[in-house]
Amino acid sequence: MPKDLIDLASLGAAGIERILERARELRQLPRAERERLCAGRELVHLFLEPSTRTRISFELAARRVGARVIDFDGDASSLRKGESLSDTIRTIEAMEVDGFVLRHGEDDMPRQVAEIAAGAVINAGAGTTAHPTQGLLDRLTLEEELGDLAGRRIAIVGDVRHSRVAASDVVALSLAGAQVHLVAPPELQRESVPDGVERGAELDPLLPELDAIVMLRIQRERIREEVSLDLDGFVERYQLHAERLGRMPDGAVVLHPGPMNRGVEISDAVADGPRSRIHDQVRHGVEVRAAVLEHCLDGPR
Amino acid sequence: MPKDLIDLASLGAAGIERILERARELRQLPRAERERLCAGRELVHLFLEPSTRTRISFELAARRVGARVIDFDGDASSLRKGESLSDTIRTIEAMEVDGFVLRHGEDDMPRQVAEIAAGAVINAGAGTTAHPTQGLLDRLTLEEELGDLAGRRIAIVGDVRHSRVAASDVVALSLAGAQVHLVAPPELQRESVPDGVERGAELDPLLPELDAIVMLRIQRERIREEVSLDLDGFVERYQLHAERLGRMPDGAVVLHPGPMNRGVEISDAVADGPRSRIHDQVRHGVEVRAAVLEHCLDGPR
Amino acid sequence: MPKDLIDLASLGAAGIERILERARELRQLPRAERERLCAGRELVHLFLEPSTRTRISFELAARRVGARVIDFDGDASSLRKGESLSDTIRTIEAMEVDGFVLRHGEDDMPRQVAEIAAGAVINAGAGTTAHPTQGLLDRLTLEEELGDLAGRRIAIVGDVRHSRVAASDVVALSLAGAQVHLVAPPELQRESVPDGVERGAELDPLLPELDAIVMLRIQRERIREEVSLDLDGFVERYQLHAERLGRMPDGAVVLHPGPMNRGVEISDAVADGPRSRIHDQVRHGVEVRAAVLEHCLDGPR
Repeated sequence: MPKDLIDLASLGAAGIERILERARELRQLPRAERERLCAGRELVHLFLEPSTRTRISFELAARRVGARVIDFDGDASSLRKGESLSDTIRTIEAMEVDGFVLRHGEDDMPRQVAEIAAGAVINAGAGTTAHPTQGLLDRLTLEEELGDLAGRRIAIVGDVRHSRVAASDVVALSLAGAQVHLVAPPELQRESVPDGVERGAELDPLLPELDAIVMLRIQRERIREEVSLDLDGFVERYQLHAERLGRMPDGAVVLHPGPMNRGVEISDAVADGPRSRIHDQVRHGVEVRAAVLEHCLDGPR
Repeated sequence: MPKDLIDLASLGAAGIERILERARELRQLPRAERERLCAGRELVHLFLEPSTRTRISFELAARRVGARVIDFDGDASSLRKGESLSDTIRTIEAMEVDGFVLRHGEDDMPRQVAEIAAGAVINAGAGTTAHPTQGLLDRLTLEEELGDLAGRRIAIVGDVRHSRVAASDVVALSLAGAQVHLVAPPELQRESVPDGVERGAELDPLLPELDAIVMLRIQRERIREEVSLDLDGFVERYQLHAERLGRMPDGAVVLHPGPMNRGVEISDAVADGPRSRIHDQVRHGVEVRAAVLEHCLDGPR
Repeated sequence: MPKDLIDLASLGAAGIERILERARELRQLPRAERERLCAGRELVHLFLEPSTRTRISFELAARRVGARVIDFDGDASSLRKGESLSDTIRTIEAMEVDGFVLRHGEDDMPRQVAEIAAGAVINAGAGTTAHPTQGLLDRLTLEEELGDLAGRRIAIVGDVRHSRVAASDVVALSLAGAQVHLVAPPELQRESVPDGVERGAELDPLLPELDAIVMLRIQRERIREEVSLDLDGFVERYQLHAERLGRMPDGAVVLHPGPMNRGVEISDAVADGPRSRIHDQVRHGVEVRAAVLEHCLDGPR
């Protein structure tokens, strides 16, 4: 039976572990064997917000397990002719499509689509609340680096309030037993967080204790308009540069979900330096998404 | 030798029956066997009018028989650089492409392209005169439901004048021996119809005798501007709602080519109710198009 | 190891010959065997300038050798979010993509991307300096027609200054020993050319000695604005029409990279006449690109 991936809390600790384990196993599989796992399955990309890297990552992941993708062009679509999302989903599904990969600006949309659709619905990022495959790939990246995350201290820094990456990382890392710190100026901080997650406005005092740091993208224009952020002050207090990195323990690593604003939340030296695991994140993204697709689709057709 | 599908009249009664029969047979074929039917064939999608559902339906149909599609992006294309359609077609064909699936605003374009192209040309909807695969899928849907259509009474209701669906349904259903009624206010009625097809402005008197009804999409903006339709009056006289459906015989079914304007030509209760065959139409669309592609392409490459 | 194709001078005479030879061999290979050559390889299309024919040609070429293409939609992309090209390339590559096919307005971009990318980088046309696969396909077309090109006289006529086709043809044909003439009014002539290439403003005196002529596209708007070309005068002096063609030797052939401006640089009668090899060029384009992809990618994955 097809399964959905709407958020990580619903997937649960055991579900997350199974997918990460499977992502590691898929690395060893010969190509021909991998491509039989979901052979003949048809996925529809419903990317109603622009996204290059996630779209391409999911498409490559689909190919790895033998599934095929059709791009639904939101712009040139029936939606423009006034058709409801529900009719669009049901119509596409009547074509015997096996699942949807959905990117949308609204938090609740993946759940709404999942209620309509009989096939798999995979949340590829929605609103500010969930980007579950990013949470999975960040956790895989950290586990590859640090092993068991129980007791590890990990800071997520920057525009925590608007970041679906932060939201999913909190769940993925907390369920692994890590101590997560959300670090942001008050106007970019989350209003509520799960028990056990710490919030603060200061990065510097945390640095010597961190095993890893996830720097978030600052969406300049949006932030200036909506919260009148003092960008220079932000850079001064939070930018991860070589000097700050030097105050972190040996072996600590740096993540960033991309795309980066070099010179804002992260310096060139750190982004391109030996502690950066930014490209590993991208590589693990395809691995994790292939495992998610295998999990959500129901074997080959 | 490659064959074209420009309109249903040219395909003829026997040709239509062969394709519908083949569409039913393809359901039984194992995937691997199906995908050998047109393996290695390359199709080009020339969708010069936006269409999501038909484009996706043809792409899925192509995959079912092992053919592959390339999207010709009309916007970013040589056409913008002033190249003639004829040079564009000949150029693409010189790349050893096997056929074109064409959607265009002008009635005559598929025939013009077919005169230029050596490969298969398949009309995926043109102007207001032909949408042959829609005619085929509507007929398949009705035959699955009602069996032999000879003597059956079927109404096509709404903007008959501008509807290529109506045009192709008239041919497909008349050739099956059905009695077709085109029902529309005078300003939306066709000026001429084939012998044996009935036209009228009244829906209600017909209801008790109908075996099926095809509700057409009202293109609100366009209709208000071009023919200054009284939309409230239209809804009052023609909308298919539960009460009107109740006056149709038991076993009568409801079709709509989509996308629907719920609350205009059809009510929610009817669209989502037990007599609706709207999702069957979509499913049969892929089946019929797979059979059309097999018919028009010339086996595997 | 993956290889780049940035320009033909770097590929060299022997490299060019190997690719053309391989393009001819691939014609004989059964489809299943061909599609194993680069099976599982993933290419990314980075077409940052619109191009239909080249994009489709590369995609069909990729399929011929079993590689798969992902379109990077430059418009809806991370580039819009301010990400550097370098970060975009490195990110896509971290997804274990095997190569890029790049079309760009700037001369130097393919070389810059090749410095960043670990995988293959194939120049599908950049700025005004290089379009190497066009050079290869023009040479293949001429060799099929004329055999060994040593000592053959070939004119390239029209907007030589802005034409990357002219730039690559000069290299491809000169390395084969042909005598190349660049023919253009002074304002459309190249400022410098390799040794041995001749330049002139007069077409008519050359006609009786030419074995082949390559007519270039006049980009009307651009040329009128930038160099205030007298278009009527251009047509008068350079258009290849039946009368001019009649003054060329028997067996001489006509090429054009397309899209054509019929009635400007070429007349209908010549474009569609028996000496035109314009469709052969297109066919050879796919053949040559398949051989280039096999050369640049490193066998199947």
